Amino acid sequence: MSHPQLGVCYYPEHWDETRWSDDAAQMAALGLAKVRIGEFAWSRLEPEPGRYEFDWMRRAIDTLAQHGLEVILGTPTATPPIWLIQQIPDMLAVDQDGRTRTFGSRRHYCFSHAGYRQACANIVTALAKAFGDHPAVTAWQTDNEYGCHDTTLSYSNAAREGFRTWLSQKYQSPSRLNSAWGNVFWSMEYSSIDDVDLPNATVTEANPAHWLDFYRYSSDQVVSFNRLQTDIIRKYAPGADVVHNFMGRVTEFDHFAVGADLDVSSWDSYPLGFLEDRVEADDDHKRTYARSGDPDFQAFHHDLYRATSGGRVWVMEQQPGPVNWARYNPAPRAGMVRLWSLEAFAHGAELVSYFRWRQAPFAQEQMHSGLMKPDGDPARVCDEVRQVADELGNIDQSTRQADVAIVFDYTSCWAWDIQPQGQGFSHFQVVFELYQALRRQGLDVDFIHTESPNLDDYKLIFAPALFSFSDAFTKRLGAFNGRLVIGPRSGSKTQEFCIPEKLPPSLPRDILDLKVNAVESLPPKMPVRADGGSLKIWREFAEPGPDCAVLRCSDDGPSVLFQQKNVFYLAGWPDNDLIDEILTGVVEGLDLKTQSLPDGVRIRRLGNLIFVFNYGEAEHSLADLGVNGETVIGGPVLAGSDVVIVRQNDQM
Amino acid sequence: MSHPQLGVCYYPEHWDETRWSDDAAQMAALGLAKVRIGEFAWSRLEPEPGRYEFDWMRRAIDTLAQHGLEVILGTPTATPPIWLIQQIPDMLAVDQDGRTRTFGSRRHYCFSHAGYRQACANIVTALAKAFGDHPAVTAWQTDNEYGCHDTTLSYSNAAREGFRTWLSQKYQSPSRLNSAWGNVFWSMEYSSIDDVDLPNATVTEANPAHWLDFYRYSSDQVVSFNRLQTDIIRKYAPGADVVHNFMGRVTEFDHFAVGADLDVSSWDSYPLGFLEDRVEADDDHKRTYARSGDPDFQAFHHDLYRATSGGRVWVMEQQPGPVNWARYNPAPRAGMVRLWSLEAFAHGAELVSYFRWRQAPFAQEQMHSGLMKPDGDPARVCDEVRQVADELGNIDQSTRQADVAIVFDYTSCWAWDIQPQGQGFSHFQVVFELYQALRRQGLDVDFIHTESPNLDDYKLIFAPALFSFSDAFTKRLGAFNGRLVIGPRSGSKTQEFCIPEKLPPSLPRDILDLKVNAVESLPPKMPVRADGGSLKIWREFAEPGPDCAVLRCSDDGPSVLFQQKNVFYLAGWPDNDLIDEILTGVVEGLDLKTQSLPDGVRIRRLGNLIFVFNYGEAEHSLADLGVNGETVIGGPVLAGSDVVIVRQNDQM
Amino acid sequence: MSHPQLGVCYYPEHWDETRWSDDAAQMAALGLAKVRIGEFAWSRLEPEPGRYEFDWMRRAIDTLAQHGLEVILGTPTATPPIWLIQQIPDMLAVDQDGRTRTFGSRRHYCFSHAGYRQACANIVTALAKAFGDHPAVTAWQTDNEYGCHDTTLSYSNAAREGFRTWLSQKYQSPSRLNSAWGNVFWSMEYSSIDDVDLPNATVTEANPAHWLDFYRYSSDQVVSFNRLQTDIIRKYAPGADVVHNFMGRVTEFDHFAVGADLDVSSWDSYPLGFLEDRVEADDDHKRTYARSGDPDFQAFHHDLYRATSGGRVWVMEQQPGPVNWARYNPAPRAGMVRLWSLEAFAHGAELVSYFRWRQAPFAQEQMHSGLMKPDGDPARVCDEVRQVADELGNIDQSTRQADVAIVFDYTSCWAWDIQPQGQGFSHFQVVFELYQALRRQGLDVDFIHTESPNLDDYKLIFAPALFSFSDAFTKRLGAFNGRLVIGPRSGSKTQEFCIPEKLPPSLPRDILDLKVNAVESLPPKMPVRADGGSLKIWREFAEPGPDCAVLRCSDDGPSVLFQQKNVFYLAGWPDNDLIDEILTGVVEGLDLKTQSLPDGVRIRRLGNLIFVFNYGEAEHSLADLGVNGETVIGGPVLAGSDVVIVRQNDQM
Repeated sequence: MSHPQLGVCYYPEHWDETRWSDDAAQMAALGLAKVRIGEFAWSRLEPEPGRYEFDWMRRAIDTLAQHGLEVILGTPTATPPIWLIQQIPDMLAVDQDGRTRTFGSRRHYCFSHAGYRQACANIVTALAKAFGDHPAVTAWQTDNEYGCHDTTLSYSNAAREGFRTWLSQKYQSPSRLNSAWGNVFWSMEYSSIDDVDLPNATVTEANPAHWLDFYRYSSDQVVSFNRLQTDIIRKYAPGADVVHNFMGRVTEFDHFAVGADLDVSSWDSYPLGFLEDRVEADDDHKRTYARSGDPDFQAFHHDLYRATSGGRVWVMEQQPGPVNWARYNPAPRAGMVRLWSLEAFAHGAELVSYFRWRQAPFAQEQMHSGLMKPDGDPARVCDEVRQVADELGNIDQSTRQADVAIVFDYTSCWAWDIQPQGQGFSHFQVVFELYQALRRQGLDVDFIHTESPNLDDYKLIFAPALFSFSDAFTKRLGAFNGRLVIGPRSGSKTQEFCIPEKLPPSLPRDILDLKVNAVESLPPKMPVRADGGSLKIWREFAEPGPDCAVLRCSDDGPSVLFQQKNVFYLAGWPDNDLIDEILTGVVEGLDLKTQSLPDGVRIRRLGNLIFVFNYGEAEHSLADLGVNGETVIGGPVLAGSDVVIVRQNDQM
Repeated sequence: MSHPQLGVCYYPEHWDETRWSDDAAQMAALGLAKVRIGEFAWSRLEPEPGRYEFDWMRRAIDTLAQHGLEVILGTPTATPPIWLIQQIPDMLAVDQDGRTRTFGSRRHYCFSHAGYRQACANIVTALAKAFGDHPAVTAWQTDNEYGCHDTTLSYSNAAREGFRTWLSQKYQSPSRLNSAWGNVFWSMEYSSIDDVDLPNATVTEANPAHWLDFYRYSSDQVVSFNRLQTDIIRKYAPGADVVHNFMGRVTEFDHFAVGADLDVSSWDSYPLGFLEDRVEADDDHKRTYARSGDPDFQAFHHDLYRATSGGRVWVMEQQPGPVNWARYNPAPRAGMVRLWSLEAFAHGAELVSYFRWRQAPFAQEQMHSGLMKPDGDPARVCDEVRQVADELGNIDQSTRQADVAIVFDYTSCWAWDIQPQGQGFSHFQVVFELYQALRRQGLDVDFIHTESPNLDDYKLIFAPALFSFSDAFTKRLGAFNGRLVIGPRSGSKTQEFCIPEKLPPSLPRDILDLKVNAVESLPPKMPVRADGGSLKIWREFAEPGPDCAVLRCSDDGPSVLFQQKNVFYLAGWPDNDLIDEILTGVVEGLDLKTQSLPDGVRIRRLGNLIFVFNYGEAEHSLADLGVNGETVIGGPVLAGSDVVIVRQNDQM
Repeated sequence: MSHPQLGVCYYPEHWDETRWSDDAAQMAALGLAKVRIGEFAWSRLEPEPGRYEFDWMRRAIDTLAQHGLEVILGTPTATPPIWLIQQIPDMLAVDQDGRTRTFGSRRHYCFSHAGYRQACANIVTALAKAFGDHPAVTAWQTDNEYGCHDTTLSYSNAAREGFRTWLSQKYQSPSRLNSAWGNVFWSMEYSSIDDVDLPNATVTEANPAHWLDFYRYSSDQVVSFNRLQTDIIRKYAPGADVVHNFMGRVTEFDHFAVGADLDVSSWDSYPLGFLEDRVEADDDHKRTYARSGDPDFQAFHHDLYRATSGGRVWVMEQQPGPVNWARYNPAPRAGMVRLWSLEAFAHGAELVSYFRWRQAPFAQEQMHSGLMKPDGDPARVCDEVRQVADELGNIDQSTRQADVAIVFDYTSCWAWDIQPQGQGFSHFQVVFELYQALRRQGLDVDFIHTESPNLDDYKLIFAPALFSFSDAFTKRLGAFNGRLVIGPRSGSKTQEFCIPEKLPPSLPRDILDLKVNAVESLPPKMPVRADGGSLKIWREFAEPGPDCAVLRCSDDGPSVLFQQKNVFYLAGWPDNDLIDEILTGVVEGLDLKTQSLPDGVRIRRLGNLIFVFNYGEAEHSLADLGVNGETVIGGPVLAGSDVVIVRQNDQM
């Protein structure tokens, strides 16, 4: 059995070389195994065009290796140096208001710019040639946090030109494009695809089909930009893991498509920063969890990114203390960094790597804490890291497919961002609330996408708010023999962003004989009550065919939940009470153990281990939680901010 | 007696020609009489510069005519095609931040651009020549929704040049302009009018006189742009009604001035979208009426636009279900579409035309409901439309002047938008709240403007927040023998946007011997209490002369209401309680029947019919409402969302 | 003994010359002594390039002088005329979004533009030559309200070029700049200082060191722009006072540095406008004081600007009634204008000058009240002004150093604006809340800066949120024998905006043996409770050395207050309850009389006078307030909005 590992992000270029060896020794002593370096060092690796300075990097790698540490080497393409901007100034990103962004921070490039791609190919090739065969370099990271700081979509001339070429390839003629987009509406017909502009500056909203194609185009650029690098790395470093570090709740590009070119999807987990800036919740929830993070947000991303590269997931950057970038940056409660680390392993992570080794006393992230303080002494969190390191041996790396899966679909994210139809409607949020509900019931969840194989491995699949059912996916759903829950808004569009001719969800009658005649979005505090809870934000007026039964109605009449054999349709966005109620019915008769977990407590199974996490401060007895078995870590009582791991010989 | 009609907006270019005939047959069967077409079809009518394709349009018109339908033909100038933008790219609109708007939606033109005007003249001439004598084309619509999407004011070079010319004509010399604007203040004096820039990019606010002239200029451009088209249409289609469709709460151009060139003012009535986005009200009110619309907002616009073309008003686009463009888009309660339709007739509309026939499954408005669903079947609302069609015969088209009139003044809208002096002060809102108060008392209201003839037809005229009294209007008010209520802020400026030398309201002493020495604006939740209610937002410190009596004071001293013979002056913005209280006094002794209507219930008289509308859900007996007479539609009890029509032989 | 004076701002160019003499006579009769003129009159003083028209100005000055009035002559450089903008269009200011601001209001210039500076030198020289020896011109004002309307920082080409030159002078080489800023982070290293851009348009935040240098550069431009004028004025008008009028809560340039070149710092005091737009407070506080202004905001600025030019302070513009520029503009309660005037004198002002004489009926400020109404009659406020004039003889101009001082530091304002680390952290606000707390306890407060001499004149000095301790200041603090209170966040950076190597506050161990290991920012409504109150917004985790004692801990453990001999360290931002509690302990044993003043009541000593002010409406007896002595103005009871002045032969 192999065990998961710990790592850390390190910037040798930030420190005097005399320090490196001590740093490496301390890392090893703390129980760390992997060190990520290099991803922002372009100005040191290539101080002038074509003049590479790799010696310092080799010495740094060697120093780490001498202490038994493996290296994850980052390509530095998220921070192009000033001389490159001066060579090709039109490589700079342009924001939605048409303002060119300037040098002086990071991610200031357009994915569409051919000249910039060439420059990236050059530096990546040079690095891969130099270090591809270094035995300590066991993994490579491409770029850093694609899409962060709203950088997936750029409105540059390079993007405009690239988009036209992309459209020409897709549609072949302006008349096909006009027809697909419905450009007859408002006389938007083009006689040449070269006349199509970017959709960001129209008087009122641009055509949603225009926007969706621009999202697709932009996502494709990220994919091909990444593949350019992975191809080079694989050529010169054939055995190494190729990784990228995704961010939390970045949905502007298709992570499944990027992930397909990686060995491992990793991500950067900042539970407190995310709660403050990216989790949608009321003030009460945000205060309750201000020092622990949302109880589901991390797990959600572990599960999602475990799917994007086919099963392997790492946490490349783990928050170790207060960060610098959220509106408010509180300190985590004692124990939470350990909890986050163990939780990542419970969800299948092979590595948790802390960001960063020593807090930098200078520049943009000087207020971002690290494992070491700026004065060189260990920060308080080191005790927790050491404890995790000691506990690693108890955790057998393993996989265990969940019984329940949710379809996560990036195109659907784009579609509802483009056309929410009611403020607050988002694919991410619909899926996330469903995920929370399943986890409140103690269930493990996998994410899948519409091309995932082996649907039949699941007892229960959800496809909420899925923009469009492709023909292929429809066919596979028809053959699926578990239970399927779709809606709201699933299948409500064609691939061209039109309403299907036979009305949503537009499934074959033998799968679901139901049509959505009309929809409405609901203002805040105007819930549509139904037995057991309410609909919020979104409600549909659906009409079932003869084989489709109504299971539940709203108090004002229209039906909320339908069933046709193994398929359920949910005609609105349920609040927490209603979704809990509905899930109880949906799982009935399936061989699934559900339970109602207390606030802040979450369970996750890994192999024959059961992990129990407490994001709250109240303590709970395992007996009350119905968790039995041999205690591997912790005791019979789960304290606040604590973790218990139990081994079960028989599966629950 | 003639009866009002129903109509619908239709886009033959959106559908296969094979469908047209069935569509027309269904329209006729549903009881519709008029069909508006063509207003966004430029790219189909003129696919290339100068190459007109009118045959399909003729076939569409003929098809409709064959089923007895009349056609309202729209000029397509709200959606100039891409080839025109490429010919004259500087015709594009420029927003207040100086960003040129691009092709890809609609209304992307500057009213000021001479080249675009010529292109419009060409297409309108061609259309008018082609269809001016078609017997089915009984009306023409110019453009579409002037000013929608904030397009009245454009900050383009064309606007800059045009504004300078306009200023030169108005002022003749820079010294006159400097003097009128008070440019000695802050050394803003010009030595050439050609140095005057647009007022949108100054460090702190530009001179209000500068802004007001730019609003005036911009409004004049809309007027002349429209007149260019009406002149052509009248030449080639001499008998047809010339119409434009105004929007709700668009105040950036003078609708009286545009309306003077039309036969009929029509408007686009979206009660739910407007409640959500354009009605100022608290959350309670918005939730209560989320499925019905504000009880006064539609009536307000029927009454206002009935005035702008001298008495004739249509609803060109009537919301039939959820729309796509408000922040939240709930569905109307059953019955509301019928109620809105009948209410329009009660306020004198000759036509209610639904937007649109079949919901388009593509492009920007795919989530905008229609009478037909995208699958071609009738939407639920068709039942209501059919009922209205059946009821039309009971409604005799008629007119009946109200006893009460309010002066609505677009220049005042601009003035207080430019210089609110306290957040929330707006001419529209002051007038609207007064209108609501009068309607809560069961009164019918007409709108007039300062040049309206026949003031003496009214028993009571209000001129609240009227920017300036022109000499001519002052003279006519002096001769008016009904009661007149002015203030707050009425006559507080000269036509040049200065404070009058003798202080506001600057009326001759024999009309009103009173001066406003000072004013203040009030923060929220800091009401100035007075007997019966409070002032909010605005309060004045006014000093009456010997012939002017104080009727009411605030608790902290200063007077709130004054009277001099038949003239009342209101020295602040009253809340609902206070305005109700004040109105009771103002109407005392006039032969006006007032009553206190329940929430959501409104009454309107048309000829000898009394319409009673229920925007609420509670039911009311007509007896309790004091409404007697022969019931034409409905019974003795007014249900929620319902309408009762009663015939009275004697006027109430 | 000399007495303070009253004055007024006057614009002869706004009125017909025939009025001037009457105006001057009325001013004199009202008891005014000084009249400020000229500061916006460039277009009248130089109507064409190089053609000066000074005769009218001379006649205006002579007219005022004939009535015994002294003149403060303003340089007109805040309003460059249109011909100058046309000569050098790149002198226009550019905002943070890169948009060039246009002519048509005021302050539309870049401080960095050499051509504009030359034009200023020319007009100031011409004016100084013409009027420098006029006996009535006893003072000169440079420009007007530097920094108002967010104009300190301009993002123009002139600023970009100037910044590069400034950086070159400061750093001498790109490597030194790279090292100081830590540009190795994110590959931000420059090979030429001429490649450095302005920091306003980066993808994510620019380097805080980059920003701080741009703030420093921009502040330096204000200083040198002002000095250009003071040098000229001193040459031609050697005996006159040179003054500038600062604004309230403008912190983007160093007022100490500008003030060093002035004889008198004056400022523009708009208590109601400031409460509405610039005071951070909850709605209750804002409503309570909506007609009086915040009880501490004016005093704060009197005390601050008394320090910026070494002791002499004037109020150049005093709000006389409602203004035009805040979101809401209520009228002051009767008595408040008198209170504000007397309060200024209590804090050492030599002059209170009302803005403005007659309300202008035209242009941008037509809704700004004056002493005279637009119709030429006196406004109500004249009674209060006359009363103040009558009371002046009772007030002996004097100075009296306070026992308590607070360090106010503009660099710290910039640092925390750049890097708040938690929304709401600002140097101004931390200092202001401390000032309020000291004043609630009846203490007088001086402001000092880090280079102020004579620290030992104070018993107690506070240096909260002081960005960095310079070596020189640290040395002087080491020698200070009073009590010193520092923190939160004091000394948390080096001058280069890095974290100090030995961690904050980085003071020598013999001054304070304590290090801040970590910090956190706190979301709203998540207070950290401690005995007697709470921390909010900011909390530190500090570790004391052996000589440093813990005085107070938070309920969750970490220490809040430390003491080492005469030095206290406060490890967080206390709320009002906690700061009151802490101050009680800090002043214990010092010879300072403290008391708990009722809401809205404030006390200030001037020589042997005690002024008692009532910003509230409740009345208080002097006995209850513990104020004894001979009553000079007022009686034994302090009414709402009233002032009492008591003479004490023995100091309190």
